Amino acid sequence: MQILFFMKIIRDPIHGYIEVEDFVLQIISTEIFQRLRHITQTGLAYLVYPGMRHTRFEHSLGVMHLAKELTRYIKINSEQYTDLDFINEEYLKLVGLSGLLHDIGHLPFSHTFENALSLAKEVYGIDVEYYGKKTHVIFGNRVIDYYLGNYLDKLSKNYDVVNFVQRVISSTPRTKEESLASLIISSPLDADRGDYLLRDSYFAGVGYGNFDIERIKRSLIYVNGKLAVLKKAIPVVEQFLLARMYMYETIYFHSVVGLYNAVLSHAVVKLIQKNLIPNVAPENYLKLNDVVIMSKLNEAGREFFDAIVYRKGFKRYKKDLTGNCYETLEKKRKEINEIMRENNGLILYHDFYDVPYSEDEIFVYDDDELKPLSTESKIVSSLTIIKKGIVGYHESAEDKMKKIYEILQECPL
Amino acid sequence: MQILFFMKIIRDPIHGYIEVEDFVLQIISTEIFQRLRHITQTGLAYLVYPGMRHTRFEHSLGVMHLAKELTRYIKINSEQYTDLDFINEEYLKLVGLSGLLHDIGHLPFSHTFENALSLAKEVYGIDVEYYGKKTHVIFGNRVIDYYLGNYLDKLSKNYDVVNFVQRVISSTPRTKEESLASLIISSPLDADRGDYLLRDSYFAGVGYGNFDIERIKRSLIYVNGKLAVLKKAIPVVEQFLLARMYMYETIYFHSVVGLYNAVLSHAVVKLIQKNLIPNVAPENYLKLNDVVIMSKLNEAGREFFDAIVYRKGFKRYKKDLTGNCYETLEKKRKEINEIMRENNGLILYHDFYDVPYSEDEIFVYDDDELKPLSTESKIVSSLTIIKKGIVGYHESAEDKMKKIYEILQECPL
Amino acid sequence: MQILFFMKIIRDPIHGYIEVEDFVLQIISTEIFQRLRHITQTGLAYLVYPGMRHTRFEHSLGVMHLAKELTRYIKINSEQYTDLDFINEEYLKLVGLSGLLHDIGHLPFSHTFENALSLAKEVYGIDVEYYGKKTHVIFGNRVIDYYLGNYLDKLSKNYDVVNFVQRVISSTPRTKEESLASLIISSPLDADRGDYLLRDSYFAGVGYGNFDIERIKRSLIYVNGKLAVLKKAIPVVEQFLLARMYMYETIYFHSVVGLYNAVLSHAVVKLIQKNLIPNVAPENYLKLNDVVIMSKLNEAGREFFDAIVYRKGFKRYKKDLTGNCYETLEKKRKEINEIMRENNGLILYHDFYDVPYSEDEIFVYDDDELKPLSTESKIVSSLTIIKKGIVGYHESAEDKMKKIYEILQECPL
Amino acid sequence: MQILFFMKIIRDPIHGYIEVEDFVLQIISTEIFQRLRHITQTGLAYLVYPGMRHTRFEHSLGVMHLAKELTRYIKINSEQYTDLDFINEEYLKLVGLSGLLHDIGHLPFSHTFENALSLAKEVYGIDVEYYGKKTHVIFGNRVIDYYLGNYLDKLSKNYDVVNFVQRVISSTPRTKEESLASLIISSPLDADRGDYLLRDSYFAGVGYGNFDIERIKRSLIYVNGKLAVLKKAIPVVEQFLLARMYMYETIYFHSVVGLYNAVLSHAVVKLIQKNLIPNVAPENYLKLNDVVIMSKLNEAGREFFDAIVYRKGFKRYKKDLTGNCYETLEKKRKEINEIMRENNGLILYHDFYDVPYSEDEIFVYDDDELKPLSTESKIVSSLTIIKKGIVGYHESAEDKMKKIYEILQECPL
Repeated sequence: MQILFFMKIIRDPIHGYIEVEDFVLQIISTEIFQRLRHITQTGLAYLVYPGMRHTRFEHSLGVMHLAKELTRYIKINSEQYTDLDFINEEYLKLVGLSGLLHDIGHLPFSHTFENALSLAKEVYGIDVEYYGKKTHVIFGNRVIDYYLGNYLDKLSKNYDVVNFVQRVISSTPRTKEESLASLIISSPLDADRGDYLLRDSYFAGVGYGNFDIERIKRSLIYVNGKLAVLKKAIPVVEQFLLARMYMYETIYFHSVVGLYNAVLSHAVVKLIQKNLIPNVAPENYLKLNDVVIMSKLNEAGREFFDAIVYRKGFKRYKKDLTGNCYETLEKKRKEINEIMRENNGLILYHDFYDVPYSEDEIFVYDDDELKPLSTESKIVSSLTIIKKGIVGYHESAEDKMKKIYEILQECPL
Repeated sequence: MQILFFMKIIRDPIHGYIEVEDFVLQIISTEIFQRLRHITQTGLAYLVYPGMRHTRFEHSLGVMHLAKELTRYIKINSEQYTDLDFINEEYLKLVGLSGLLHDIGHLPFSHTFENALSLAKEVYGIDVEYYGKKTHVIFGNRVIDYYLGNYLDKLSKNYDVVNFVQRVISSTPRTKEESLASLIISSPLDADRGDYLLRDSYFAGVGYGNFDIERIKRSLIYVNGKLAVLKKAIPVVEQFLLARMYMYETIYFHSVVGLYNAVLSHAVVKLIQKNLIPNVAPENYLKLNDVVIMSKLNEAGREFFDAIVYRKGFKRYKKDLTGNCYETLEKKRKEINEIMRENNGLILYHDFYDVPYSEDEIFVYDDDELKPLSTESKIVSSLTIIKKGIVGYHESAEDKMKKIYEILQECPL
Repeated sequence: MQILFFMKIIRDPIHGYIEVEDFVLQIISTEIFQRLRHITQTGLAYLVYPGMRHTRFEHSLGVMHLAKELTRYIKINSEQYTDLDFINEEYLKLVGLSGLLHDIGHLPFSHTFENALSLAKEVYGIDVEYYGKKTHVIFGNRVIDYYLGNYLDKLSKNYDVVNFVQRVISSTPRTKEESLASLIISSPLDADRGDYLLRDSYFAGVGYGNFDIERIKRSLIYVNGKLAVLKKAIPVVEQFLLARMYMYETIYFHSVVGLYNAVLSHAVVKLIQKNLIPNVAPENYLKLNDVVIMSKLNEAGREFFDAIVYRKGFKRYKKDLTGNCYETLEKKRKEINEIMRENNGLILYHDFYDVPYSEDEIFVYDDDELKPLSTESKIVSSLTIIKKGIVGYHESAEDKMKKIYEILQECPL
Repeated sequence: MQILFFMKIIRDPIHGYIEVEDFVLQIISTEIFQRLRHITQTGLAYLVYPGMRHTRFEHSLGVMHLAKELTRYIKINSEQYTDLDFINEEYLKLVGLSGLLHDIGHLPFSHTFENALSLAKEVYGIDVEYYGKKTHVIFGNRVIDYYLGNYLDKLSKNYDVVNFVQRVISSTPRTKEESLASLIISSPLDADRGDYLLRDSYFAGVGYGNFDIERIKRSLIYVNGKLAVLKKAIPVVEQFLLARMYMYETIYFHSVVGLYNAVLSHAVVKLIQKNLIPNVAPENYLKLNDVVIMSKLNEAGREFFDAIVYRKGFKRYKKDLTGNCYETLEKKRKEINEIMRENNGLILYHDFYDVPYSEDEIFVYDDDELKPLSTESKIVSSLTIIKKGIVGYHESAEDKMKKIYEILQECPL
């Protein structure tokens, strides 16, 4: 009894204590969920920020927790503006489940594997399934069907749980209940970002991903089908968007982090080519984790093994490619892809692209009106798209850089 | 130039920024040091405290940093009591190196592999090298010789670096310089504990491993060949020892953490038996990391694989075995080992034992006298040896628990 | 509307955001409550720890908040052991009010003024009201009657609010509802200590008053009319009691802090003697704040003014008086009081006395039994009474120290 | 000996431990420096953020500490760009002293008293000394001459300490040594802001004043007579400027904080008019502290006393006056001043004005060139001047608001 009492609370560095009900414990205990323990949250970022060894497992628990918190506060905060009677214990359960399972489809090293699929298709001409940024979501929904469908369906009388969760995760809501849940799980100011910015920042040991999540909880309202904040809370949302931007600029888009994730992506392609890892069918998911990749890495080639395991061999072209140069290079994608293919990934180009804020999605509620945040905040409107390219190469391929240097020459640095 | 400037600083959640000189960067870049990135600091503790995915790599950097800091402060703090002219930039270099390399000999999953060696010898009768708690130190010195000897020897004019580092690490100093360094790297109030308590506490997200390291830095003095603190600093040392005790009680000796580390230890024995992992010769060290173990785990048996990868299958006997019961069981070791062997590790006994404070080693300097801390502090003298046994079993072996129940019956709970 | 929404949340460094309902806002806005803004929480501790300028105002808000939090958790945590149906919104209101008003009777500089009353009576033979440690509580109940009685009585249908609050504050509960509230507001593990340890520690900028309040919230249960914790939570309670002890040893009982509080106490006596401050009748309370004392200080004598405003003139006898010496001095109280009186407070003796843990009041719930914490925890049983005396004197009185030196000679240091 | 050892370290919540040399201790112990303990750092901000009770005393210690730290790092960071041989122990001493004394001339409630002098002159036509934002600096230099001149002059062989400190504080350096010191003590990225943003943020308990000071220390270089940062450090400087902006927007320029500071300013004018507080001559400085103002407040009028002591009586006009409305009102200053004068301060107008970043003063060092930060950072170039007016009135003057309403009607909200 006591033991149960304490087992249902998980200590978490970000949210303090995460309370875990029995039906959630059942899901967490499945093999398919435990698998997330072996999927690093931020790929190879740990090669630069050594503390970043955290996994999708903790993040998923954190999103479940935060999604429920946000939902509770949205109900309280919105009371004077709108009725949200549908927010009850059962609804919280579904929102929590959606948060818990939103990343269940992630492949080894998270986005790095997705990048590998993209390279496989575009650079190496391999026939793989790849759906851009939606890839892990689409695979996730398959995984939910395959592993958790029967169990989930027993969890609610009033909702079709599987459908609810799948639509929420893939941002294709059909009801107002799904619509709010979808905004809470996946929108510009959501539980997903709320958790990963704080968590990644904590494990990297940097301050700039920090923001006042307690204040955000107390600021979100839901009116006219939109998530919005009161005018007074603009500074805290600015802070959130700035935190996001700094995390991109200095961690996610760190040139060295990018270099190694690109190296790993090419290595994964090699493993796919050689049929050394199973395909992405849901029945193979239990075998698709970081350990499998790491343990087969030597088969991808000594250069890749050494780079990822010992951080050696690859170098970065001295300048990051930004502004007009980036645009020029994007136009030369075909030639660049050709160079990568010819050199078997020992010469690499990797691009970073992020829109820190898409203006029509966060709203400010002021004088009974919803206004887009970007017109209300000069700071927010000054946030620009981040784009940057890097070129890397293995020492042994240094003499084959001629073609890429030619392209770079056309590119005004 | 700029790049170099920034590459020499590593962001660390515990110490803020760790400055890394060029000669240190050379060492960090070797394969043998990068290997530490694949050795988890706290074994399988992450199965209970999900954030604990940090590795010996970060810890080693942290100990280097803290050891140098402590040395600098000891010089300043001790000025009025004693001359420490030998503490200069060169000496700091050697102390730093000793910190950096003190754990270079650790095996996969750190102490868990050592435990496996012990089981291999005592339970399964396999002929392996095992030297108790000193194992990773002895192996470490071999590894230093094998991989780093030539390089280290060039780093100092006045010291024989390899000998210095090896003697410091193995607590067998021959000179007063080595003696102080040895106390700083490995003594009851040292840079090693200073780092790991703070680090493990941070990654677990718990507060109780915290203590005022800044105050400790300013309190340590070196007089008459002993590390000591001033009387006024007793509370901060109490805090440090209490933090240590709580970390043992609630994390390192957490019953569930212990259970899984025991399971993993038996699994490693299986892999040793089947010759699936190389022996501990220094030339094999690059292949001895967590990934190797994890990727071969299915060969150790489905039960072990499921337990460690999915956290399922094993259960814990309902009561922890403490006090007199623990003593009784220790006397029955032979029978218990026999049961483990017969059941191929599907029935397990694991014991925890820690001396939170051995009285003759921390000194208080008061009225020109060195007094043992335990006579000066009631709190410290109240700290007791922590000892506890747990029994675990795989579900499939539940019906074979009869023998162990018989032993437990003799044991007054 | 918006304004109201935001005004009801007060930013607090300790608890994050404190939510303030309308009826609480009414009380906070009264002169008698605003008065607490001018009563320093920790007397003159800021002369040693400069950050400690916080007041009873913030602390009172904090206790209100924490008391309600503890009550909510106690209900949840205790569910499987006992029914606590009486804990509803109305009850939370009363517990909150009790927390909010528990220090309403404090006099200028909090406990320092109480000490002045004690000196006035015992050293200077002035006829003042003084009830030991209960002084501010007894005065507080009068103040509630005088200023808030009418308002409070309107706040509940089912409770006599004034009686409830007064009995809870003075630990004289008559009903089970009052009994639990009383334990929450004032017991060895209560909202009062919970707040002031964290708050004083934060403002002093020291780590040792810190403990895991979130874990304590999740550990408290109420069974058989006692507050208790589960066995697993013993470490967190130990931490709390140790935090308390360290705060006493290093801040509240800091010798220099004590010296200046003693100086101030004598200064206050002078002001009382000269009728320069109003007596403690409730109708005078609005005039009894720190500013009044500080602004009249020059009338207490140049020596006192200089000491408190500029931290100069007074010195401390070189040794703290502890152990047997303390006992001896306590027996000589009469002579010492005589010396203080003769020297008009220019020679001072101040004693510190604290019982860190009185054993029959925190309980551990284990195996359906309530056991005293001290038998379950060696750490707790090792906590000893803190007692210490200090002697101080003004430079000008150095030549009059003979008598006190004689007494000190009898005292084995 | 021990005592001295520990007395020279002051615990500080912001910087950890501040080390205080003997000659600094002498200065801190003077009456004129201790006086800063009775000058609140942020005026009446505590009426809204209760924790903000900290004083110029702690801040001055903090600036001393941080100024020395920045100087040390600037030397290390700049090594590869320029020689800074003049930075030695003696120079650090002078920089530290400049930091310690930079606010010695502040009047009660810091900037609020300065505002009172401005009102006295412009609204009430009283002949007072007032030099705009430089007031406390000019007075500070007088105070240094009067109280500390003799002592300071003994502290250095190679520098004229008094002249050095005075020129540094008033930003009128004559030598390169003074020039660097002046940038460190007072420039857009200086020790003063570095300390007060972190400190005010800590005591308010808000997160948005936080930034990575450790990173800033490691990023500042001094080249070609300018303080600059490397390109890679732009994000951390953005963070610093954003932190500054948020502190202004939400704390320093909080409408309610402004209202009460305006009320206090008028109250101070009354006290000046009635000759109840001494003039600002240096010989009166010991009497010019917060206690004097607070204790004479009832002589300024019941309305002012109640507002400041009990937070009651005054109200704020419902809208803040920004944008064009602010501009319009600034043009009507004369009429508004007339209204304030006629109503004896019971009707108030208060304006806020801040330039978050003046573009020519922070430089980025990139490719051997110094570039202004604003051209390198879109975020920084988006920071705008903050300006805002508020109107307040005492309840009793509500019926006299007609004239001000007329002015407000001309003002497009």
